[in-house]
Formats: sequence, structure tokens, C-alpha cells
Amino acid sequence: MNALVLVSPGRVELRDVPPPDRAGECLVRVSMAGICGTDLQMLDGYADFHGIPGHEFVGVVEKVDRPADARWVGTRVVGEINVGCGRCEWCAAGVKEHCVDRSVVGIRQRDGAFAEFLSLPAANLHAVPDTVDDETAVFVEPVAAACRIFEQMSIDDRARVAVVGDGRMGLLTAQAIRTATPHVTVIGRHARKLAVARALGLAVLSSEEEVPQGSRFDVVVDVTGRPGGLARALQIVRPRGTVVMKSTFHGEGAIESWPIVVDEVTIVGSRCGPFLPAIRLLASGAVRVKPLIARVATLAEHASAFAEARTAHKVLFAVR
Amino acid sequence: MNALVLVSPGRVELRDVPPPDRAGECLVRVSMAGICGTDLQMLDGYADFHGIPGHEFVGVVEKVDRPADARWVGTRVVGEINVGCGRCEWCAAGVKEHCVDRSVVGIRQRDGAFAEFLSLPAANLHAVPDTVDDETAVFVEPVAAACRIFEQMSIDDRARVAVVGDGRMGLLTAQAIRTATPHVTVIGRHARKLAVARALGLAVLSSEEEVPQGSRFDVVVDVTGRPGGLARALQIVRPRGTVVMKSTFHGEGAIESWPIVVDEVTIVGSRCGPFLPAIRLLASGAVRVKPLIARVATLAEHASAFAEARTAHKVLFAVR
Repeated sequence: MNALVLVSPGRVELRDVPPPDRAGECLVRVSMAGICGTDLQMLDGYADFHGIPGHEFVGVVEKVDRPADARWVGTRVVGEINVGCGRCEWCAAGVKEHCVDRSVVGIRQRDGAFAEFLSLPAANLHAVPDTVDDETAVFVEPVAAACRIFEQMSIDDRARVAVVGDGRMGLLTAQAIRTATPHVTVIGRHARKLAVARALGLAVLSSEEEVPQGSRFDVVVDVTGRPGGLARALQIVRPRGTVVMKSTFHGEGAIESWPIVVDEVTIVGSRCGPFLPAIRLLASGAVRVKPLIARVATLAEHASAFAEARTAHKVLFAVR
Repeated sequence: MNALVLVSPGRVELRDVPPPDRAGECLVRVSMAGICGTDLQMLDGYADFHGIPGHEFVGVVEKVDRPADARWVGTRVVGEINVGCGRCEWCAAGVKEHCVDRSVVGIRQRDGAFAEFLSLPAANLHAVPDTVDDETAVFVEPVAAACRIFEQMSIDDRARVAVVGDGRMGLLTAQAIRTATPHVTVIGRHARKLAVARALGLAVLSSEEEVPQGSRFDVVVDVTGRPGGLARALQIVRPRGTVVMKSTFHGEGAIESWPIVVDEVTIVGSRCGPFLPAIRLLASGAVRVKPLIARVATLAEHASAFAEARTAHKVLFAVR
């Protein structure tokens, strides 16, 4: 099959490789896949991953290994990306996201979605309703990550929330949070991206603008993907407020930590989330993704696609 | 009255100054006061405070301004250190600790306890039971800060807790947490201080020792007072665990923040706490403080007292 292979930091090649063949799993023919900030960071050496990247995808189940999974064949699916060992305490508790021996699609010890096929256990798959097209379905994984916030805290309709970062995750997260409270502001530094946010009906604020003491936010979500994001979030969160961290950038950042203590701020690390609410948000149109799609590329166009993904909201690969 | 005055960073002088005279407040004759890490940091310039430092104290109410407070005269008291404006939303909610215009005894816009007298509203005072002597009562404020943790999270008796820092706050916090769970470990780098922890019946671990992946802690409290404390706490907390930050050091620290996201760690800033549970813990002997007292000095001995407080567990001033 054709696949993009991350050979070494910065070096991706389109190669012909054997399709995956994992006992007990389902073979998914990939239709579309999305380039995520994590992919770009892995290209730069984060997570020390070698193999096929890509973890946002939609596809059709081509073949199953276990007879019990036969009903999945031909189903259009998206997939949770963490696969646990099945034996540890975390897996027993149903939290495969934190299994120490987990593999993660396109991120850790498991090939990903920038290929004609990928393999996943049936337990990771979710059928995609006909009302959600492929270009939308490929966003289920990042929208699920946004929905993780609702599992971690309650956000009521009076909560004032800022999303720091006007990139793809920023605009998905802000739209998801808007289903809980109307008081959501996207804070960013790119006029073009903030214009997209505005077109999606979101309130926006330039990074340069001051947030007066009395207008600080109850919840601030850092999706900048950069070291300065946390420091900025801490400046604009109110005392006893919450900062949600979604940025997994490479390297150290400097923070002045005494305001965390003096203002008794809570910082919550937040990663993968539940797929069903994400599918619902996309199916209902509460989270709109089409304005984010800058380009649909082929795998052969990977070099320019990755380059464009560094500045555009979203670049997809049409694989099939 | 005699008072230690912080004139400029690093410069403290014993001076004869007028006693405080604040309308509507109570005048407290200070019996004993404790030197806290925050005092030492203020000596180094933190919080830009000028005036009389000191916020851990026990004393006797000498005089009141409002007739309604007459019953306090002659009462042995400790005092909450935050005084709110009484008009803002925070004060209306009873959370004077976060009033933007608050003053704080010996820390912010209000003289402190390294003096013969201090002033506080009656609402801040708590009577000290006869069973708690002065040397013990002076620890109510820092033990209250440890008790703040119980207001912020539930710690059940299976929780495995590490306290990073073997100083005064470390040993007070570890003893307070031991009332909720027997599984408390103090982690530190000073053999002499760890020996005191051991004598208090606490499990100890040297900072140099590795914590295996499977033995990481549910809750880690950083009371090191140093920039490296948070990074260390993040290394030894389990996925989805909680790091409580109590260190208000001066300046920036570098942290690698992606593990916060990948392991979905929660970081909780924690400051001042409730006095009543602290008084109960000290009265019952659940928190023992005598082994922490390295020296009781006079105000005139301030230079050597502050110097000793930088390495010893606790140095007190006997004021009266």
C-alpha cells in the first residue's frame, strides 16, 4: 500500500509498504486523514516516532480478523487512537488512554492514517452517520479532544471562557464550549484566522489586547501549541479559575509560578476525549469544520501539504 | 513599640514605632511570632513589601475600637491574615483571601507580627484553647494553609500522597494529610530534616531516589519553595493525579509542560486555609510542632534569627 513514512525527524517519504496485519484487529481502508499539530511536532522530533504518522481519519472497514467483528465490514468509521494492553489497572478501569503499555495510532508504537490502510481493534471504532461527510468526520478525533474538557469540569452557561490560540484546535474547542456557555472568546494573533473565528460567530480578541483585572476569565483553554500559551493563560484567568492545557509542544517553557499559588488557579492537563459527543456535535452542526479546511491534498503532495499545515487551519489528505 | 521594620530588600531594623491604630479593629499584643519562608523571600524583595513583616503569631487582645468587640479583650488569639475591602464580590462571597484590594498581615499593605502590637478586625480572630500553648499556637496559620488542601480536594484513606520538601511546611503538611490517609511520604534532601520527619513517624524518601513508574503518587504537594519543586512533583505524580502547589518563590522556573497534558495531571494552587480545623489538629496532637522549633529568639536577635531560619525548620520570636 502507499504510505507516508516518517523516517527521521523532518524526513517523510511516500513508500510502498505492506498493509498492517494485526491479529484480532480490523483493517480500515482510509478515506481521508487530517494533519494535526502533533504530526508537525513529530516531524520535528517530538515523541521520537518512526513509522506512519496520522491519527485523525475516516475510512471503511475492509476486513476483520475475529468472526465476532464481522458486522463492521463495510461500515464507515472513525477510531479512538489509544489501544491498551488489556491487562493493567488502567485498562481494567476502561481508561486505555493512560495504559503505560498503550500504543497510539500514528504516535506511539502503531502505524497511523497517512496510508491506504490502518489497523485497529473493533472496540476502538465508531460508525459515522450518513449525515456526517468524510471531510467533517475526519474532525471527530480533535473535537473529541475538545469534549474531554466537559468530562473534566462543569461549565455552566454563566461561565466566561477564553480559548487562547486561533488555530484548528482553538476554533474547534471554542465551538464545542459554546454549546455549554455563550460567553466564549477566541484569543489569537493571526488576523486571517481570527476572521474565520468571527465568521463562525465567535467573539475574538487580539493577543496584544489587555484583559482588565475585572474581566479575567473563569476558564482559559491553552491550545496555542507554544510555550508562551500557559503564561498568557495565567495572566487572564481569574483567581480560583481554571486553565485547561491542551498544548503538547516540545521543550521547556519558563513560567512564573507564584501567581498560580497566590490566585489559587487550577491547571488541568487535557488530552483525548469521547467520540460519541463529538460525532453528535458535528452531526448537529454545532461545530462547523468546513471553514477550517484550507486544502485537500494527495499523499504524494505531502511536502507542500505539511508546509501549508504549519500556517493554515487544516490540511487534509484524500487517500482513496 | 518595638518592631522589626523591613526598610529595603535585605535590610531589617529594630525600631521604636507608634503602635497601630486602625479604626474598627482590635489591638493585639503579640506574644510569639514565627518566621515563615515567605518572610525570607520578602527580605529578598518578593512582594515589594515595606513595613513590619510577620504573619504567624499568637497574642492577647489588648484593646478594641468597637463596643461590639468588647468580649475579645483579654482573649488569647491567633488571626487570619487577609483583610478584605468588604464591598467587592469576593468579600460578599466570604472569600476575603481573593479580594483585589485586600491587605495581608505583614505581606501587603498592613503591618505584621514582628512587633509588640498588631491590628486586625475581630472577624479575623480565633480564640486559642488553653490546651494549645503559645509555641504551638504560632503554627496555626501554616497548619491552616495545609488544611486548605482538604477544602480543594478529597483525600481518601487509600490515597498515596508525597510531600516534596522537608522544611517546616513539608512536615506540617505531611502530618495534616496523615489524618486523612496513612500513605504519606516526605521527600527531601536534608538528612537532618528528614530525621525529624522520621521522628514524627512519617515515611521519608531522599530526593535522589527514583520513584518507579508503578509507584507514582496520587497526590504530590510541592512545598519546596524552589523552582525545581514543580518539575520534581510532575515526575512522581501518576497519570490523572494531582499536584498541589504551595511554593511562592520569586522568579521564573522552567518546566517541560507536555507531561501535564499527556498524563492529564491537575495542578492546584493552594494558599491560605481555615483556622478552626488547624486549631483542632494542633490541640489533638495530630500535628506536632515542638520538634520543628530550632530556636526562640528576641526581636533584637533578628539578624541571626533570620539567618538561622534559612536552614532550620522553625525559628520563633518571643516578643513579650
